[in-house]
Amino acid sequence: MKASRIVKPKEELQLQELKTPVPKSSQVLIKIASSGVCHSDIHLWEGGYDGPEGKFLKTVDRGVKYPLTPGHEIAGFVEDLGEEATGKFNKNDKVIVYPWIGEGLCPACIEGEENLCDKPSSLGVYQDGGYADHVLVPSYRYLVKINENENINMDVAATLPCSSLTAYNAVRNARLEPYHNLVVVGAGGLGLMAIQLAKAIFGARIIALDLDNNKLKTAKENGADIILNSKKEDPIKAIMELTSNLGADAVVDFVNSSQSVQTDMQFLRRRANLILVGLYGGELKLNLIAMPTKAFRLIGSYTGTLNELVGLVSLAERGVINPVVTDRFKLEEATQALSELKKGNIIGRGVINP
Amino acid sequence: MKASRIVKPKEELQLQELKTPVPKSSQVLIKIASSGVCHSDIHLWEGGYDGPEGKFLKTVDRGVKYPLTPGHEIAGFVEDLGEEATGKFNKNDKVIVYPWIGEGLCPACIEGEENLCDKPSSLGVYQDGGYADHVLVPSYRYLVKINENENINMDVAATLPCSSLTAYNAVRNARLEPYHNLVVVGAGGLGLMAIQLAKAIFGARIIALDLDNNKLKTAKENGADIILNSKKEDPIKAIMELTSNLGADAVVDFVNSSQSVQTDMQFLRRRANLILVGLYGGELKLNLIAMPTKAFRLIGSYTGTLNELVGLVSLAERGVINPVVTDRFKLEEATQALSELKKGNIIGRGVINP
Amino acid sequence: MKASRIVKPKEELQLQELKTPVPKSSQVLIKIASSGVCHSDIHLWEGGYDGPEGKFLKTVDRGVKYPLTPGHEIAGFVEDLGEEATGKFNKNDKVIVYPWIGEGLCPACIEGEENLCDKPSSLGVYQDGGYADHVLVPSYRYLVKINENENINMDVAATLPCSSLTAYNAVRNARLEPYHNLVVVGAGGLGLMAIQLAKAIFGARIIALDLDNNKLKTAKENGADIILNSKKEDPIKAIMELTSNLGADAVVDFVNSSQSVQTDMQFLRRRANLILVGLYGGELKLNLIAMPTKAFRLIGSYTGTLNELVGLVSLAERGVINPVVTDRFKLEEATQALSELKKGNIIGRGVINP
Amino acid sequence: MKASRIVKPKEELQLQELKTPVPKSSQVLIKIASSGVCHSDIHLWEGGYDGPEGKFLKTVDRGVKYPLTPGHEIAGFVEDLGEEATGKFNKNDKVIVYPWIGEGLCPACIEGEENLCDKPSSLGVYQDGGYADHVLVPSYRYLVKINENENINMDVAATLPCSSLTAYNAVRNARLEPYHNLVVVGAGGLGLMAIQLAKAIFGARIIALDLDNNKLKTAKENGADIILNSKKEDPIKAIMELTSNLGADAVVDFVNSSQSVQTDMQFLRRRANLILVGLYGGELKLNLIAMPTKAFRLIGSYTGTLNELVGLVSLAERGVINPVVTDRFKLEEATQALSELKKGNIIGRGVINP
Repeated sequence: MKASRIVKPKEELQLQELKTPVPKSSQVLIKIASSGVCHSDIHLWEGGYDGPEGKFLKTVDRGVKYPLTPGHEIAGFVEDLGEEATGKFNKNDKVIVYPWIGEGLCPACIEGEENLCDKPSSLGVYQDGGYADHVLVPSYRYLVKINENENINMDVAATLPCSSLTAYNAVRNARLEPYHNLVVVGAGGLGLMAIQLAKAIFGARIIALDLDNNKLKTAKENGADIILNSKKEDPIKAIMELTSNLGADAVVDFVNSSQSVQTDMQFLRRRANLILVGLYGGELKLNLIAMPTKAFRLIGSYTGTLNELVGLVSLAERGVINPVVTDRFKLEEATQALSELKKGNIIGRGVINP
Repeated sequence: MKASRIVKPKEELQLQELKTPVPKSSQVLIKIASSGVCHSDIHLWEGGYDGPEGKFLKTVDRGVKYPLTPGHEIAGFVEDLGEEATGKFNKNDKVIVYPWIGEGLCPACIEGEENLCDKPSSLGVYQDGGYADHVLVPSYRYLVKINENENINMDVAATLPCSSLTAYNAVRNARLEPYHNLVVVGAGGLGLMAIQLAKAIFGARIIALDLDNNKLKTAKENGADIILNSKKEDPIKAIMELTSNLGADAVVDFVNSSQSVQTDMQFLRRRANLILVGLYGGELKLNLIAMPTKAFRLIGSYTGTLNELVGLVSLAERGVINPVVTDRFKLEEATQALSELKKGNIIGRGVINP
Repeated sequence: MKASRIVKPKEELQLQELKTPVPKSSQVLIKIASSGVCHSDIHLWEGGYDGPEGKFLKTVDRGVKYPLTPGHEIAGFVEDLGEEATGKFNKNDKVIVYPWIGEGLCPACIEGEENLCDKPSSLGVYQDGGYADHVLVPSYRYLVKINENENINMDVAATLPCSSLTAYNAVRNARLEPYHNLVVVGAGGLGLMAIQLAKAIFGARIIALDLDNNKLKTAKENGADIILNSKKEDPIKAIMELTSNLGADAVVDFVNSSQSVQTDMQFLRRRANLILVGLYGGELKLNLIAMPTKAFRLIGSYTGTLNELVGLVSLAERGVINPVVTDRFKLEEATQALSELKKGNIIGRGVINP
Repeated sequence: MKASRIVKPKEELQLQELKTPVPKSSQVLIKIASSGVCHSDIHLWEGGYDGPEGKFLKTVDRGVKYPLTPGHEIAGFVEDLGEEATGKFNKNDKVIVYPWIGEGLCPACIEGEENLCDKPSSLGVYQDGGYADHVLVPSYRYLVKINENENINMDVAATLPCSSLTAYNAVRNARLEPYHNLVVVGAGGLGLMAIQLAKAIFGARIIALDLDNNKLKTAKENGADIILNSKKEDPIKAIMELTSNLGADAVVDFVNSSQSVQTDMQFLRRRANLILVGLYGGELKLNLIAMPTKAFRLIGSYTGTLNELVGLVSLAERGVINPVVTDRFKLEEATQALSELKKGNIIGRGVINP
């Protein structure tokens, strides 16, 4: 099999020829049709990311080992099955892979949040992933069948296990009621999916916030009730006016920078859920007395659960949500895909078709 | 009727003779047997409290009006009933008062969290309260009947609607499972009640943290499995060791100062619930990237709900919890009661018996 | 004021001239614009309904007193306010009334399900309701403001507090995930609203069951994914086939007769939620061993909560749901309205415009 | 290895010599210390049980295959580990086994209720279990470590995965608040554990119902607030009196016979949760109209989840609960153990020590 691997951080990915694994017991070998390219892959490629106080947080200190085949958004075909996986899926079944694999023993795992395991072994992060023509999945339990139709093809399917899933988990964490005002901060790929989901299955009133008029226009088309350009008008003033001076019931922040969260804190209603999703980072000066007196809830949200992924597949198959794939690359173009993504040249979602 | 009132912030409370109100419609007049003295009464007396960056936050800016009869922990006897309250309670019924009265129209109120109303009119804060021989309660719905017995007298009952209730709400917000490690920060009155409750109705393993060995000894007697003196050993190191280097599943911080929360953040397990209750205040420098990647949940907790109060009454009547009242004052000693509390001379809970 | 009242069961309603009440304390006087006519009003008119084993269950035995002004679906204008209601609403505000008023002291009330109070005093059932030109509402807390627009007029608004609310509560009780198959039994007014809601805010796959092809056609237009005529095909066989022989994850039965529930029980998936809503009645022979081994959940659902009503108003204002009013009557035509409803001549919902 | 197996229903179990399996990938081989003998094993031995209308429901029709090694309550030592299980547990670790293994793909499995899987492969039911000196567990994920101490030995540990777990799941399904009245029907082994748990971690008021004074005495010692002998007094009358004529908020019925449930239905409060656990069976004539008007919830409860088991282990290790083992058998006495259990001669719980 072929894989495009990070051999050393910051260097070009290498296209390597590897031995194709043979699945045992519950394992399944997948022939990859489409593999999403995600912002977090850039951190793997660069060997880390900027933490607080200018520190560079290395991926190797978090347990990542190189060489690594990145890629955690995988759609493909069942090619071979271990003996215990046989009968659960059939050869050529179209599937996506739930990549957020945990150890199975910690509270996260036994409470159904394997994505938040104490000792994760996620595909494409802690073990080889989808920038390849094949991938070995540790158990058939991490596969979700796809019924390809006019609403969903393999490229679209590939985007579900990370970007769509993160948006879904975040919106669920907001615990919306139809009478709530939800502010979505950042109308990029995740923000748009969050807007689609909040519209489609929660019925809340959605206010989208961004700096870019084009993105806001798309947000409106995707279901935002109100759009606000923070560069052109004061979002705090605008949101307080839109909410009878009470503030937003829920905020999902896909930026999560010092500046964005500092602003969020000014337009929260008492009891508001502020969901922090973005990986921009920085520091918030949090006024502690406001936490009890305002009963704020700051909730970190990271990827999503297997049952949320199964829900997303169902919604995508029926056309309730529509993730958008805009850029396609070959396996040998993996470095280019990451570069383009880093430069901000990929509008929707990019995928690799090996 | 007589009431001990704050006429002007920082001045001695005045014992005034007022016209005894006549209850109409749903209202009920209560003859007070016991009225708790709470730290937050000190803020009312001083006209405000220290906010971030050295600002003094005035109570009048939050809608408090003077003269005011403070007191939100009220136990007493039904003396007179409005026509709609008649039949719901009888004269001489022993009751406590739920003081966290809301407007009834906001999400908090319609979702059962009237204590977190957008426009609160709490007794003893926004309308006259319990430092008096009588109090008018806006509706019989805010009364909870007390079956006085060997486990609960009127002084103990008076402490339930605020200190015990706050502890209960905080512990519930921690969403405990029996296999969780709960850290209780601050083993004062609220901390001890939280320990009793976490022990009695959640079955979690409890680690108590304080600076005072006497308090920690009491914490142990109240059910803490492990006690730690933060002055004598490094709590971060100790808790990481006690939790196989994974961190605490839940923390309830009854101090909520810069220093205490900064420490809390260092011993949180992934997915931990950090419940912020104390009103000490200050600023936390929050590392934003840790929120999604660690999936932390910072939850502000403030007083509690009516159904939690009904639960507490049931627990106290059956002796499952045991709030401790240590100091008793006369109505004319209200200023003294507040002074003693401010000086830290009241160990358990102080009450006024008019 | 004028009211069309049941003076004696089974006799024609009398149009009476009554003294217009003056609201005190929290009370509000409403000038009625539209008042829904509901099937349960027929039971009040007939003085009871058929119970199990041919027994006639009298309304007077459940605490109903005649003469009574029926009508629990009320939309109108604020006309006068008690002193405590003043400032909460303004004269001429358009509002609907939450009619499921409880006593306020039982677990139902303190847990936010006032509609299921032990000692209810519902408007139009236990106290005078909406078949009148005015109604006195016990507290402003039972009013929900309506922003009339192209999506919602006063007639549509009137239907929200009972038929739409019951459908909403039932669908919420079904605890749907997007990957669930929901069967809606009975595609009448409530069934159609349930379909709209399940589609709009839960994203589940909906199978509608009825005996009438016209109703099923409407069900399809309202969002049902699949329609089944139980007269023409075996619903058990059909649903088992549609669900890979596993059965439905959730069923909401708006008929709730011996026959319909006996059928439901045959196509339930393990762990299914079966929500029983209809008032048809009869007896089910329940195989008890199947309850634990199949882990079925049979859940009775009755009207809905205040916060659900606020949610519905928001959804209706934004056109997410569209209740349909088909028949309008004058106040003096109340008897005729009930007769037509009883005969099955009202397709959508009938209202009285006084 | 040796196993005591059901070769043919109704015949004596045979002690067979089998090849000791070698664990692969995630599998773990356990050397059994103690294996609980459960009522449901009798059904396996008899080849079925009595269903409604006198039908005998065969185990083979539900997928059971003979010869079978029964036994789903297993405590033992890790003896050998597959390569993926290595590092997760160590040789000689003391563990219990979660036997309610599912396929991993259905809603039950992905929502954390693997015990209610559509296609279960439970140990000791659908694959060989614990009446043996060794058992092969399909994945280390089904093991829970035991810290043996003065509160818990291997015999006690063995009872947790079925009888204690079923009681815990049932009590959790009752959704108790401290102000609720809980009726526990049947004060046998499961009932006593339910009483211990309801007392220890829910704080509700408990009424125990049985026909046997000795059992009721033990119920009282285990924490029941009130005991009622249904043979000596009318339980309906007694419970209505104890609940101010309102009825019980929750009932957990460990008998679940026609007669017991018919009685339960008469003392339910509006909104009551009636949890059906027992496998006695029979038919209930359910008055359907009462389901919506009373908003009853009938909930079938069957075994429990992995995270509940982890909770139980923690509670048992700390002595919060105390399961009682009264009878011990050798492996060759398996037939005798089942016979004694069937005759009702085992008071607490019986275990096999191979």
